This record gives sequence, structure tokens and C-alpha cells, in this order.
Amino acid sequence: MKMQIDAQRLRSDFDALAAIGVTPDGGVDRSALNDAHLEARRWFLERADAAGLETAVDAAGNHSALLRAHDANAPTLLLGSHLDSVPNGGRYDGALGVLAALEVLRTVRDAELELPVTLEAIDFTDEEGTLVGLLGSYAVAGLPLELANPRGGRDVLVEALARAGLEESRLTDARRDPSQLVAYLELHIEQGPRLEGAGVQIGVVTAIVGARSFRVTFAGRAAHAGTTPMDARADAGLAAARFVDRVNRIVVEEFPDAVATVGALELEPGAFNVVAGLAHVSLEFRAQDEETLDRLQARLFEGVDAQVEPVARWEPTPLDPDVRTAIAGAADELGLSWRELTSGAGHDAQALANVTRSGMLFVPSQNGVSHNPAEHTSWDDCVNGANVLLHAALALSRR
Amino acid sequence: MKMQIDAQRLRSDFDALAAIGVTPDGGVDRSALNDAHLEARRWFLERADAAGLETAVDAAGNHSALLRAHDANAPTLLLGSHLDSVPNGGRYDGALGVLAALEVLRTVRDAELELPVTLEAIDFTDEEGTLVGLLGSYAVAGLPLELANPRGGRDVLVEALARAGLEESRLTDARRDPSQLVAYLELHIEQGPRLEGAGVQIGVVTAIVGARSFRVTFAGRAAHAGTTPMDARADAGLAAARFVDRVNRIVVEEFPDAVATVGALELEPGAFNVVAGLAHVSLEFRAQDEETLDRLQARLFEGVDAQVEPVARWEPTPLDPDVRTAIAGAADELGLSWRELTSGAGHDAQALANVTRSGMLFVPSQNGVSHNPAEHTSWDDCVNGANVLLHAALALSRR
Repeated sequence: MKMQIDAQRLRSDFDALAAIGVTPDGGVDRSALNDAHLEARRWFLERADAAGLETAVDAAGNHSALLRAHDANAPTLLLGSHLDSVPNGGRYDGALGVLAALEVLRTVRDAELELPVTLEAIDFTDEEGTLVGLLGSYAVAGLPLELANPRGGRDVLVEALARAGLEESRLTDARRDPSQLVAYLELHIEQGPRLEGAGVQIGVVTAIVGARSFRVTFAGRAAHAGTTPMDARADAGLAAARFVDRVNRIVVEEFPDAVATVGALELEPGAFNVVAGLAHVSLEFRAQDEETLDRLQARLFEGVDAQVEPVARWEPTPLDPDVRTAIAGAADELGLSWRELTSGAGHDAQALANVTRSGMLFVPSQNGVSHNPAEHTSWDDCVNGANVLLHAALALSRR
Repeated sequence: MKMQIDAQRLRSDFDALAAIGVTPDGGVDRSALNDAHLEARRWFLERADAAGLETAVDAAGNHSALLRAHDANAPTLLLGSHLDSVPNGGRYDGALGVLAALEVLRTVRDAELELPVTLEAIDFTDEEGTLVGLLGSYAVAGLPLELANPRGGRDVLVEALARAGLEESRLTDARRDPSQLVAYLELHIEQGPRLEGAGVQIGVVTAIVGARSFRVTFAGRAAHAGTTPMDARADAGLAAARFVDRVNRIVVEEFPDAVATVGALELEPGAFNVVAGLAHVSLEFRAQDEETLDRLQARLFEGVDAQVEPVARWEPTPLDPDVRTAIAGAADELGLSWRELTSGAGHDAQALANVTRSGMLFVPSQNGVSHNPAEHTSWDDCVNGANVLLHAALALSRR
């Protein structure tokens, strides 16, 4: 029989972690560097220490457990994810990947395997973006951090770093020498319904999609809703509504692998009895390569009479072929079904892809629900994911 | 030559009134019973007094100038409108009708005409609805006032009444004996573009349209905008957008004389990266008769999967045929072009229609703009309206 992780030990850790920052409806609030998150990180180091593993915290607050290779100069194979959550999040997102990484180290140590690499289970700081987003993994990869105008605002960032004892000017010291990294491997829940829908156990992630977001403003003419005949109106709300419908039809009919979303829409002045003079639309779309993003963007805005303001842009990240092969091979060895798919969400793996071979595997999310207390993955799927992580890590450590 | 009002005297009053509550961009803020509105009402009584007219203030705060008939038992022909405005309103809405009514009284007095009726120029309290809406005219007509849950909130109402020295429990004392009323006649700007568009000088109002408003809530499923494929979404925002488009198409294609408006739309949770789980739509529609309103309502909601909550309902008000004949006849006598049209906005005339013959005439609004500092009616049109008001009043006073 193939080597397996200790499912009971992993379960015990999972339940203990889920209690830290627990919310009344059974989710968690471990927003980056809040009290519950800091408590979870301390607990993680205690668990590593209790298992006889080395621990470390870097200048960006990333917390690690290490299983050293005999050769002090051996490079490191990083396994990880994040312990922070969205404000009203679920118990699996991020947490499963960190705990499975820790469990892989314990399993390898218990089996007394001698690997030619140091194994490191890492919990990255602020993956979810309460502060900056991918803060810890960007720092490790030596990528520029948006500290001047962070997503959560300057005050929130400054206050959080102080609470965690981190120094803003030293965050970049967390950068690793790429030549000392073998690869980065992350287990995560899918956060979407495709694996469950296909009845497949393991997802081999081919790429993390790119995303672009825009604020689209339609200008009409505010007017009295009683006295202004329909043919004398310039209704910004109607123009925006037709744009929302158009966006959906274009993506569904012409770009089957992409997604596009209008998640917010506001009308001004915004009253029952006034035709809208302005409509603000928040548009975001994602696709797995730049060329598709370019084509989709051009098509969505083709002939649209509106003011279009770019808000954010994330480049697509192809994941490493060696890592994909290692994950698929591990699934095959374990007799688990797998398929390739893209990640529609951002992950720490996209930061690491800039400096080392980086890859991810997914396990199914029940009903595709995520960022929600109802987030759920069957325990068998969690264990399967941890075992694939183990065997993919073993494969990568040997080449 | 036919008798005419004194255009210069009317202009002088118009300019003086427009300076009371003037806003930086040349509009007015005379929200009901605010300081500027109370000043305008004092000024109105002073102007009436200076012209040798009797003045009166009733228990609902309605301010009047009176030209008494010789016969102390003669009934009253009411001419009027309102001096209050929306918070950032224009100089014509309401003001023109009150000043023209005052000018009619002065013109009749100057001409030493002996009429068989008392002429009363009345300024109704709170037409625009800062407090209750049509407060003064409802009180005169003996209609129930919504004082428990007023449009502007209880605190605003209580404070405003106190400031104006009015007693809430006595507002209903303003009720008039219908047998003592001959008719009610109101000059107002159209607040829409139809007269200007048709190149017609006078509008004879056939009815004040009825309106119904609803809060329509679409329920979907909030979901991650990156990980949720298009075919796995229940997007409340998309459903709402399609409803907005549908409402427009139905009204334009099937109900040419009606209007329908979605003036507000909100998505929840309302973020770039979350598919909307809820969409709140503010829908209002207006038509000139109940049967059309019923048919339109049924058609708009036919097969729509949403929660529909009625918010408000105003019945349509047909205006009096005698008054319409008097207005059209006066326009003909003066060689002015006229057409019949409905009023898409509510007016004090709809309250008075419950107790006496009630009618309205409109003059053109430049570009149909109203409730806006840019509100404008050419001075010639204002004078034409005042002259039609004069001759229609004379005609009504004689039968």
C-alpha cells in the first residue's frame, strides 16, 4: 500500500483550527492579522513544535514549519497556503492547504524518509486581501507590494502590522533566493462547482486566470418620472441594464471559458420618481490568457457609449508543467480521478510562479460555495487532497 | 382689445419672489415651512395687502388673498398653486400659479368688475411633499392627512409645524364647505416637453395621472465571481437588469400614453468580485386611468419571479369638463394655440377635484426641465398663461 498521511491527526488539527475565530454560524473570521488570525498562527507553530519540526517566522509574517534535509545546502520545496480568511469565511479556504502541508511533513518525518530537499509548510500572510492581498507570497517572491495605497486602506494596514509586530520597511526582507527553491505546491478547495459537477476527485490546475475590472459610467439626463414621456428620456439606468444583459450574452455565447460579472450597480439620484441621470456599473471579467482577455474586453465595450475607467488588472498565470505532471501522477498512483481546470480565483501560487516551479491541486467544493460559512468539502476529499499533496511533493523532491 | 393682466407688475412680483430662498445656481430652496418659504408667504400677504386685497391664513397654513363679491353669501372661485419648492428647485414651479392668481385679482379689482363670486388666490401648504405632500389642499378638501407616518418623517413634520405656528390637531379645520366653492383653477408649468415639442402655447389638462410604485426584489445566490462558471450562477443583478429592459419595452411598445421608471437599483452584497445574491428595484408607473394602470401592472409582472411589495398608489384624477371648456375658450378668445394633455405630476388640483370642479392649464417648460434650477418658461408664455387664467376665471365666475 502507498504511504498515506494520518487522516485522524489531520482531522484533529482541522477541528482545532476551525474553532479559532469561529463565527455563530460555524464559519470563521480570521481577517489578516486580527486577533483570531494571530492566535491561529501561534497555534500552527505550536503544532509544528509539538511534532518536533523546526519553526520560523519571516519579515513578512509568514509562518513556517520545516523538515530539514541532511544536506544543509539542500534547496527547499515549499508546500503551503494561508490561515487568514475573508471576514465571514468558511473553514476550508486556505486552512486545508496549510494543515495538509504540515501533515505531509509529519508523515515524511514519521516514515523517516531521507529527502534531498528541505520541506517547508508555509502559511502566507494576508492572502485574502484584508490588507494588501497576497502580501506574504509577494514578499517571498520579491514582487512589489502596494503599500502606499493598499486595498484595505493605509490605516488598516499600519494598525495590523503594528499588532503583529511587523515593520513595514522590512517586509521585503522576506524575499527568498529563487535558486534555493525547488518548487511551490498548494492544495486548495476549488471554490467552484466543476469538480463536483463532473464527479472528479482531484483538480490539476493549469493556470490561474487573469482578471480585469472597470468602473463603467453611463450618463443620461435626470428627469421627472411623471412628466417626461418615454421618448424624451435619456435614462442612464436603462442603458446600464442593457449593458449588464449584453455582457452576460457575449460571455455565455462567445467566450465559453471566461466569466464576466456586474456585481454592483448604482443609479443617481436614485429615487422612485426620477429618471436616472447617471449609472455606475462595476464590471469584472476573467479568462485564462491575455489574448482572450484582450478580445473579450474589446467585444464588451464595442459600441458602448459610456465612460470606462480601469480599476484593476491581474495577469493570467500559467502553472508549471512539471508540477502538473507530479500532481496528476500522484492521483494516478492513488487511484483517484483527476481533470485539468483553471483557477478562477487568485492564490499565493501565482506569486511563487514568478520565481519557481509553482502548481496547485484542487479538491471539490460542495455546491461550489466558498467565502461563506456554508463552505464544505467532504472529509474524504480533504484526505485525498492531502495524500496527493504528499506524493506530488515526494515526486518533486526527487527531481 | 381683451382685458389683460399687467405683465410688468407680474414680472416685478416674479423677480422679487425668485430672490426669496435663491440658491447659488439661480434656483430656489423653499422646502415647505423652511425659513425662506415662510418669508415668501409673508411677502405674498404683504403684496396682497399693498394691493388693497383682503388676506387670510387658515388652520393648515394656506395663505390667501381675497377679492370679495358684494354679496356676502357669494361662493368662492379658488385660483392658486403653491409657494413651496423641492429642495433644489426652480423659480416657476408653483410660484407662477400663485402670482398669476394674485395678478388676476388685482386686474379684476383695477377693472372694477363686479363678479358674482369671491375670487381667492391661494397658496397651498407643502404641495411638494417635504412634509406630507398636498397637505394644504387635502386639508381644504377634507381628505385624510397622513400625519402618523408622513413622507418626510414625524420629526420633520412636528418641527416644521411648530416653526410655522401650526397645530397638528387643528389642520383639518381648514376644510371648506364644498357648497361654498364654485371651482378651482390652477396655472402651472408643464414640467415636461410636450407643449414645447408641439409648438403649442397652452395645455388644457384633462386628467392628473395615477401612479403606483413597487419595490421589486430579485433573489439569486451570492457567489465568487472568479470560480463560479456562468452556467452555475443565479445572478440577481442580471435578473433585475433584464426586468428593467422588459419594463421599458412593454411601456414603449404596448402602452404609448403611460410611463414607467426604474429610478433606483441596488445589488447585494455589491462588490466587483461577487455575483449579486439580491437585487432591489424601485419601480414606478403612471397612466391616466385605473383600467390602464391595472393592465400595465399585470403585464409588467407577468411571469416575473420576484418579490413584489407595493410602496405607494395614487388614483388618477379626471379634471372637470366645464373648467376645461373655460380654459380652451379663454385661449381661443386670446388667439392662443392650445391642446389637451394629461399631467404626469401630482398637483393640488387633484385634491380639490374631490369637492369642486377642478381644472388646470399648463404653459411650456423649456426642454421639459423641472425640479431643477435650470427650470425655465419664456416670459411670454408666463403672461399668456396668466391671461388665460384671467379669462377662464371670468368665464367660470359667470356660470
